Amino acid sequence: MERTLIKDLDKKVGERVLVEGSVSVRRDQGKMVFFDFRDRSGGVQGVVLPKSEAIETAKEVRPEYVVAVEGTVNKRPDKNVNEGAQNGGIELEVHSIHIFSKAEVPFELGADLNIDTYLDHLPYTLRSERAKNIFKVQATIVEAFRSAMREEGFTEFQAPSIVGGDAEGGAAAFGVDYYYDQKAFLATSPQLYKQVMAGVFERAFTVAKIFRGEKHATTRHLSEAVCMDFEMAFIKDHHDVMAMLEHSTKHIVAKVIERHGDTLQKIGVEAPLVPEKFPVLKLREAQEILGAAKEPDLEPEQEKQLWEWAKKERDSDFVFVSHFPLSKRPFYTYEDEADPGYTKYFDLLFKGLEINSGGQRVHDYEQLVERIKQKGLDPAKFSFYLEAFKVGMPPHGGCSTGLERMTARMLDLNNVKEATFFPRDLNRIDLLLSTDKKE
Amino acid sequence: MERTLIKDLDKKVGERVLVEGSVSVRRDQGKMVFFDFRDRSGGVQGVVLPKSEAIETAKEVRPEYVVAVEGTVNKRPDKNVNEGAQNGGIELEVHSIHIFSKAEVPFELGADLNIDTYLDHLPYTLRSERAKNIFKVQATIVEAFRSAMREEGFTEFQAPSIVGGDAEGGAAAFGVDYYYDQKAFLATSPQLYKQVMAGVFERAFTVAKIFRGEKHATTRHLSEAVCMDFEMAFIKDHHDVMAMLEHSTKHIVAKVIERHGDTLQKIGVEAPLVPEKFPVLKLREAQEILGAAKEPDLEPEQEKQLWEWAKKERDSDFVFVSHFPLSKRPFYTYEDEADPGYTKYFDLLFKGLEINSGGQRVHDYEQLVERIKQKGLDPAKFSFYLEAFKVGMPPHGGCSTGLERMTARMLDLNNVKEATFFPRDLNRIDLLLSTDKKE
Repeated sequence: MERTLIKDLDKKVGERVLVEGSVSVRRDQGKMVFFDFRDRSGGVQGVVLPKSEAIETAKEVRPEYVVAVEGTVNKRPDKNVNEGAQNGGIELEVHSIHIFSKAEVPFELGADLNIDTYLDHLPYTLRSERAKNIFKVQATIVEAFRSAMREEGFTEFQAPSIVGGDAEGGAAAFGVDYYYDQKAFLATSPQLYKQVMAGVFERAFTVAKIFRGEKHATTRHLSEAVCMDFEMAFIKDHHDVMAMLEHSTKHIVAKVIERHGDTLQKIGVEAPLVPEKFPVLKLREAQEILGAAKEPDLEPEQEKQLWEWAKKERDSDFVFVSHFPLSKRPFYTYEDEADPGYTKYFDLLFKGLEINSGGQRVHDYEQLVERIKQKGLDPAKFSFYLEAFKVGMPPHGGCSTGLERMTARMLDLNNVKEATFFPRDLNRIDLLLSTDKKE
Repeated sequence: MERTLIKDLDKKVGERVLVEGSVSVRRDQGKMVFFDFRDRSGGVQGVVLPKSEAIETAKEVRPEYVVAVEGTVNKRPDKNVNEGAQNGGIELEVHSIHIFSKAEVPFELGADLNIDTYLDHLPYTLRSERAKNIFKVQATIVEAFRSAMREEGFTEFQAPSIVGGDAEGGAAAFGVDYYYDQKAFLATSPQLYKQVMAGVFERAFTVAKIFRGEKHATTRHLSEAVCMDFEMAFIKDHHDVMAMLEHSTKHIVAKVIERHGDTLQKIGVEAPLVPEKFPVLKLREAQEILGAAKEPDLEPEQEKQLWEWAKKERDSDFVFVSHFPLSKRPFYTYEDEADPGYTKYFDLLFKGLEINSGGQRVHDYEQLVERIKQKGLDPAKFSFYLEAFKVGMPPHGGCSTGLERMTARMLDLNNVKEATFFPRDLNRIDLLLSTDKKE
């Protein structure tokens, strides 16, 4: 018999069907046994009557057993729907149960867990409705990003993960044992390669892995993360990049609401406040609003205060902050001729968290070499990258969105690790690392 | 003035426009200067008349300079179209030229180069029409894979690149210096994680990076590559996986032909032979056809001979080979009960090259632990992965397609490195590695 997905059972009332899935709940009422079954499409209640040939097997079956069930689809006698059995109007009268796999579970699926227990058992805890919802939203975010980019004439490219050096000289890079005892590194960003691609396709995007070896232990840092980057040529300045980012971000939010509006409502998350136009503040303006000191960057606490301001004053969960001082920004950052010492660089804050950074880049070869030297770096180590500028580079700019951060803010998650399938951090690769080697 | 893309110029005959792009060709005819300009949308001829204010600048401009050109769109006096100026019916009478970037090029763009020179200068050589065409086809392949998967109810997930060990115990893994002097590795495959995801979403796919540290120096191996993987639950056997792979592969081929048919024709590549149903041979049948010895795998030369057979006998550029012997396959490979000693494992060959491997997996916890032990591996090191089986795992299977290999065969490229943006291999990370440390 062909499998019927649970979502399609209501079209088969009175028919005998084959359902394959997992047992969510089992209620043994002595003579009868009730189940909630689930598959990827939904959930349904099953009932095993005393006369059923399946009654002996039903007594053995436990939650999370994986089973094939043959039964007849009946209209439910009452409409009292059990939790987990979304398909409330019908139930399955079970005739036979085949057990594919038994299950031994450490705790009930969907139990309220502390984050470490949740992470210790990801192969199990990822199966909870909550986790599946988070990652379905995330899949929509990535897909919507890519489709927004393609519609605007961007070509997808694959950025490398293994690189020859920690190019930007900023973030700590993990070392890789390459061939013949040579040292390579994991990319902390696709930055230099996407600039190269702006010279190739004019408009290029990538969804790439980045690796950061800083010893952060916060709710917003990961050692391995996914970035959604684009780079575009023939811009006038960073405002063109911000406009493209605003456009793709609005597209993403709209797709999430369209496909997952029910989920957001169910988990009590409000759809993001998206204004007609995202507010833009220079860093100094933001600091003035907050009554804060003129530091070269915002503190996490200040980013949250700025969210309060944006909500109240501009009906927005988004706010751009631009014009960070040149001294603290990477060598490729474009200085604003009209505001010397400050840059055409921006952050995008979403619900008080920086989810994107970008800006215009230096495109003049001589100036770029000079800027590399000013940062105390050796231009010879950038010869591959610099060739893109030597052979003619258009004015360009771009930006990078952190996928896990965007997912976390979209769903009001406290920790980006909840928006990461298999998070890597200071203490963990799947399981906790042995601690005897720690400082 | 707003920029006009070159492809839209023919709608603006008689109007003054702004074009931004690169100089492909410059022909100085003394009094007049002719250019071929290109942008991401196409190419057009420009003419600078003696009276033009741009004539002095035009004399300075060289190939690959990046420029903004203002001019009037005219109908071409004759229809003799210069190479590189695809927009043949019109030309641009140039009034002004602004130089964004000068260019100093090592050789003419599109020159016929040996592979090492090509790779040494990727930031430049990727700009050739040939390279851009290759990677536009590749972008379509990835996009078509993802859309085929989504339409079949698969959910996208992000597989980790940093892993705790070389899990499969087969391919050589690169070591990573993780925190506190702990050793981690780069993933040689998302295999174990995608099996975990089959327990979560039933149907999951990923486009992920894989890293292989073998000392191969061939035209078909890369040290960093992109794989397109899917895993599906509640299969009857490996034939369900093969059917899904065949479906997605046909969808990819159709999309490539639909969007890039002209390109294929231009570069003289024939569209793949796609039969009604891909031929399937057991390894032993394939060896019999070839008159080859019963080895546990096919040699590259034999894969090519099988292509000849498939073309001739089945009108197909594709052929499945299944039932490799159990002894040489990874621990998770499912043994065929009806053919003991042989596996429900397959390779898909495309134009004589293995582009995909897959099959049914062991889903029973006890059996899996036993198989890990039989391979001389320690089940304790797989405790995270094994939890997915302990908590109930459906019958499942999946497979993995190499993106660069598929792109290379689609376009009859001799070397997978031509289908890789920034190839990493034994000798190269962007530039050649210094050789003093080699064995």
